Amino acid sequence: MDIVNTVAEVRQKIKAARFAAKFIGLVPTMGALHAGHGSLITRAVTECDTVVVSIFVNPTQFGPGEDLDRYPRTLETDAKYCEKLGASLIFAPSPEAMYPQPQLAWVDVETLPEGLCGASRPGHFRGVTTVCAKLFNIVQPDFAYFGQKDAQQAVLIQRMVRDLNLPLEIRLCPIVREKDGLALSSRNRYLSQSERKKAVCLFQSLQRCRQLVEGGQRDVSVLRKAMAESFALPEVSIEYIEIVDPETLQEQSEIQDRSLVAVAARVGATRLIDNIEIDLSNLQEKV
Amino acid sequence: MDIVNTVAEVRQKIKAARFAAKFIGLVPTMGALHAGHGSLITRAVTECDTVVVSIFVNPTQFGPGEDLDRYPRTLETDAKYCEKLGASLIFAPSPEAMYPQPQLAWVDVETLPEGLCGASRPGHFRGVTTVCAKLFNIVQPDFAYFGQKDAQQAVLIQRMVRDLNLPLEIRLCPIVREKDGLALSSRNRYLSQSERKKAVCLFQSLQRCRQLVEGGQRDVSVLRKAMAESFALPEVSIEYIEIVDPETLQEQSEIQDRSLVAVAARVGATRLIDNIEIDLSNLQEKV
Repeated sequence: MDIVNTVAEVRQKIKAARFAAKFIGLVPTMGALHAGHGSLITRAVTECDTVVVSIFVNPTQFGPGEDLDRYPRTLETDAKYCEKLGASLIFAPSPEAMYPQPQLAWVDVETLPEGLCGASRPGHFRGVTTVCAKLFNIVQPDFAYFGQKDAQQAVLIQRMVRDLNLPLEIRLCPIVREKDGLALSSRNRYLSQSERKKAVCLFQSLQRCRQLVEGGQRDVSVLRKAMAESFALPEVSIEYIEIVDPETLQEQSEIQDRSLVAVAARVGATRLIDNIEIDLSNLQEKV
Repeated sequence: MDIVNTVAEVRQKIKAARFAAKFIGLVPTMGALHAGHGSLITRAVTECDTVVVSIFVNPTQFGPGEDLDRYPRTLETDAKYCEKLGASLIFAPSPEAMYPQPQLAWVDVETLPEGLCGASRPGHFRGVTTVCAKLFNIVQPDFAYFGQKDAQQAVLIQRMVRDLNLPLEIRLCPIVREKDGLALSSRNRYLSQSERKKAVCLFQSLQRCRQLVEGGQRDVSVLRKAMAESFALPEVSIEYIEIVDPETLQEQSEIQDRSLVAVAARVGATRLIDNIEIDLSNLQEKV
């Protein structure tokens, strides 16, 4: 498995695969890889002939005061993990390789970034869609793999692909969780031992919501109020509890056939997110 | 030569060329083809194995009150012309084929659309960059051909390609002119006989500028004033006379090593544009 750092190199490396009409998969990551990323890479390896894992802590998706500088960078460990899982190539560019001149062209998606994480992270999703468009154009994969954990990101990227006719297919993979239910995240390593215990509150609030829906509750205001109780812990603050349409991200006032239940909270100084989808036609099986 | 109307068809048609590693050229047009377009197609045929001409009057680049509805649509004549010049394929989608759902994802370029035509056509260039990104992603050409007549558009598209790492190269072709100097444009057919005679004033103002620069004049305010005299005709109104950097499109107060001289005017109800580049190191040869 090779590690390359420039746009020209990664293009050169995958040229042969492209002309051989092999399936190329891309797993875009910011590194600090965990088993959530691992599930994306493993699926890509199963479905594609060539799998590129990009590792790039993208500065344009971090706002002022966010954790760009302290975001974990663990390239050596990440590389070993990718190799073990059967990836073909790591693309780990520098910020200068990705943004050699001031970026003037951006991919903006209307409406979808307004709620959920977008409300507290202005400009975040513009950075995400733009860097993903760049990575797609550099690697030209047949399939790109994203995690359902970043639900709003997944919706935005899928919309971008459709609206801009990008010649690839997005494949989403389910959230991978710790034994107690905490969704895996590179930011979990920021948590102190006591914070780590409390961090399960996000998952617990989602479980509480599902149980109430299973019990027949459909009123979103009742559900949100019940969910909020899970966050009543010292050093924990809710950023949002939202129940929205899984495609339009529009708020629902009642649970519909399909509902995305999404939460964000700070545990200590660490911002965590989690979500579940509730599909009324398939409720029991999903418990 | 085939004419196809859907994204799926055009992709299917060029698949074989792509896997044979043939060079694919794209000439994006709004139809109503003239010898200016012809020069792009001819160059593409010389340089590529497969040449796609797209013909699409893109609604998202027309503002309210602009000429979307009356823009000339001459597909049958256009098709014969493309065939004669050796194009491989015409892609002539409907608005519904290009925009099957409300468009939420847009390519925005900062700064560059602010002056020149962008000042009077808000949203125009967002429509242009977005539809070009879509066409590039649909056809996946190696080269796309644009005319220098739409100078601001050319700068924007080139910037978009670089900033978003689009895997193609933009090739620009010089303005094609009538005998009296009028730049070819699909909108010239709107002109009455008397307007047609007056329309040469754009070219004359540019020639006047070049002559003054050849005579040593470098002061942009003096040049603009002299150029304005060419437009002192009944039924003619200046929209802008600008002298800018050919890459940043920033206004220059003095002629620099390279300057883009661009004009827009209404002749009767018809909006026309034209431009020349002045390269001080190469001034005599360009006269």
